[in-house]
Amino acid sequence: MTDVATDAVTAVTAAARAAGAAAGPLANAPTAAIDLALRAMARRLTDSAQVVLEANRADRAAAEAAGMSGGLLDRLRLDRDRLAAMADQLTGLADIEPEPTRHTIRELDGGLVLQEWQRPVGVIGANFEARPNVAVDVASQLIRSRNAGVLRTGSAAIGSAGALIDHVVAPSLAEAGLDPAAIALIRVAGHHSAVALVSQPGLIPLVILRGSGDSTRSLAERAALNGVRTLAHADGGAVIYLDAAADRTRAVDLIAASLDRLGVCNRLNLLLVHAGSWADTVPAVTAALAARQPPVAVSLPPHAHPLGYEWALDSAAEATVTVAAAAGPADAARIANEQTSGLAAAIVTEDPEAARVFLGAYSGTGAFWNATPRLLDGYKLLGVPETGINIDRAPGPRGPVTFRDLYLRQYVVVPAAQADRLDP
Amino acid sequence: MTDVATDAVTAVTAAARAAGAAAGPLANAPTAAIDLALRAMARRLTDSAQVVLEANRADRAAAEAAGMSGGLLDRLRLDRDRLAAMADQLTGLADIEPEPTRHTIRELDGGLVLQEWQRPVGVIGANFEARPNVAVDVASQLIRSRNAGVLRTGSAAIGSAGALIDHVVAPSLAEAGLDPAAIALIRVAGHHSAVALVSQPGLIPLVILRGSGDSTRSLAERAALNGVRTLAHADGGAVIYLDAAADRTRAVDLIAASLDRLGVCNRLNLLLVHAGSWADTVPAVTAALAARQPPVAVSLPPHAHPLGYEWALDSAAEATVTVAAAAGPADAARIANEQTSGLAAAIVTEDPEAARVFLGAYSGTGAFWNATPRLLDGYKLLGVPETGINIDRAPGPRGPVTFRDLYLRQYVVVPAAQADRLDP
Repeated sequence: MTDVATDAVTAVTAAARAAGAAAGPLANAPTAAIDLALRAMARRLTDSAQVVLEANRADRAAAEAAGMSGGLLDRLRLDRDRLAAMADQLTGLADIEPEPTRHTIRELDGGLVLQEWQRPVGVIGANFEARPNVAVDVASQLIRSRNAGVLRTGSAAIGSAGALIDHVVAPSLAEAGLDPAAIALIRVAGHHSAVALVSQPGLIPLVILRGSGDSTRSLAERAALNGVRTLAHADGGAVIYLDAAADRTRAVDLIAASLDRLGVCNRLNLLLVHAGSWADTVPAVTAALAARQPPVAVSLPPHAHPLGYEWALDSAAEATVTVAAAAGPADAARIANEQTSGLAAAIVTEDPEAARVFLGAYSGTGAFWNATPRLLDGYKLLGVPETGINIDRAPGPRGPVTFRDLYLRQYVVVPAAQADRLDP
Repeated sequence: MTDVATDAVTAVTAAARAAGAAAGPLANAPTAAIDLALRAMARRLTDSAQVVLEANRADRAAAEAAGMSGGLLDRLRLDRDRLAAMADQLTGLADIEPEPTRHTIRELDGGLVLQEWQRPVGVIGANFEARPNVAVDVASQLIRSRNAGVLRTGSAAIGSAGALIDHVVAPSLAEAGLDPAAIALIRVAGHHSAVALVSQPGLIPLVILRGSGDSTRSLAERAALNGVRTLAHADGGAVIYLDAAADRTRAVDLIAASLDRLGVCNRLNLLLVHAGSWADTVPAVTAALAARQPPVAVSLPPHAHPLGYEWALDSAAEATVTVAAAAGPADAARIANEQTSGLAAAIVTEDPEAARVFLGAYSGTGAFWNATPRLLDGYKLLGVPETGINIDRAPGPRGPVTFRDLYLRQYVVVPAAQADRLDP
């Protein structure tokens, strides 16, 4: 192991231990303290703006000197407007009514009662791209779910994210009577720190991996080898199936709405067209895509790539959509199930029976009828921010994961007559 | 790879592919077909008793010749009474009212509505001990949850389990209009077939591992390496903490109730005693345990083994309970969290505040106040059979896993005005 790797392991271990010590009190913190912490963070985004923006300027100067491209530099940038938007999100999160975390299931013999409790996981890891605002976003959702966390971001954003943790998150936790060590940021730059984050099953049993592509896939595999569970979606790419009974105007609108951003995982990636409508439909779609700004190319059969090839991850050909034929709604669902990641797929049709068949057969995390798969997002679907997206084919949080999902199920049996003595 | 391993991989792959082809229709099968299949299985346990019992006699003769011990031989044995009990369980499972699998979450803009659908996983693997009744138990729960399955049992039970699949499960599926290939049993004997079962992430994304100990731990690790998710509890061992305010009679009763069986994972394994009551309590407990039939020994400090050492897995010293001191309810919960598997722990106390502290701090899958951790069982807790037990520290099914847990979460967005056109 190189010295760099050792530094990363040391940093992650120390942060995880401190977060672990803070996790118990955080799990049992009163609602008022959680609320206070989130609102204090919102306030400090304004009060501490200067020091945060200075750190961000330094990050950007270093990134620019290192040759970072314009798009990434923009993602890295903070300004007063963006800080204000982050503060609004925090207030919005604090405004969401807490839901009960304890449910009575049934009476048991012997004067006992069974309850189901939702307990915080403890310490959750989170790895995310070099966007400093995500540090606050993830931190706030962990706090809201009463989980401690160890955060790791891309090297370019460590200065800004560190300023946000030091001057916004930590003092707000302290102000609310919570241990600031509950939310830690790893300050060791580079890939080693991401690897270290998914290597501590005893200290960090669950890690949220944001973003798609090879690095996420490789981290998810590392985590599995180490016995660490992840919530991740290495692969994305949404599917739209234009049925024989698709309304042409609706189809054009939904295709356009599904390409509003080209670099996101749930953009239109594979357009399936009913074989019987191919000749009518494909030339019109091709022309409409070519007329966009920037123009979007189509990849027509025979394809020189797998049908689910994800254009969002191909910076040289991001503005591309694969077009292929499907024999009908069942065949379209089968193709989406077998050839894509299982993130999201939509059917465009005026025929309810075709929709019923498609939705009955498609097993991905989000399914849409006459609606865009771009809706697959915690905020758009559920009205709460998403912590990440998970495409596991297993019971548990799947699709957009929100703070409401970040709990462990526990069965608790207590004397029925004294159950109310346990209220928090 | 040896020929044996190749045989196992071939068998698992073929079974998984056939089950996969059956999984789609099963997922969309009407409730009446599921009900019919379960009730036909119950009937066939009587109608086909002779052929099943013959296969079981052959299994037992072979096992006895191979030197299997009396306890294991008894677990392997089927008779008409046991078949009748299995039939009752099937009828009980069929009698459980189906719960809705689709929930409306909220209205979205544009005349859309968001629903949450519970979809079957598809093909689920299950590995279980050499008890033929478990084959029917697991098969019925998979069918009830509309999942196809690939089953693998200990070599000694393959003949009996095969007869149950061939003469009870498969014809009942066919009678209900379902594909008999939906439930497959691997007929290749030996460990290789278990390894093959957890090696097919594309075909079998989720495997239930029943039973505890090294073989389960090793299979769970193999599965993780292969990207296969498991529901498992390699380690068990329940904890009881006798608080300073424990009622002596209640404590004695709960200790006795927690040792009714010594080979099960949620028996009393670690008895924590409030340090201030040690001198009063430990001699009496030791004497009471010694007076049992068979006598139960205590392992007192200083311990020559880890505090959570699981006696149920130690056939030479199964009748042992570890006894250790705890400073109070918070300390007891900490010890249970840090030194044991996190399966189950109980506090015995008349002091609600001590119970509140203990239950607030203990994070295992089941927590009990003046109740025995032996209640940690799907049937005892929830009134439905358990498919397995899972001790993961991650969101999702945890503790006793039942057929109700065996689903994937899917978000579905449809036009609000036409949502009722999708009713199954």
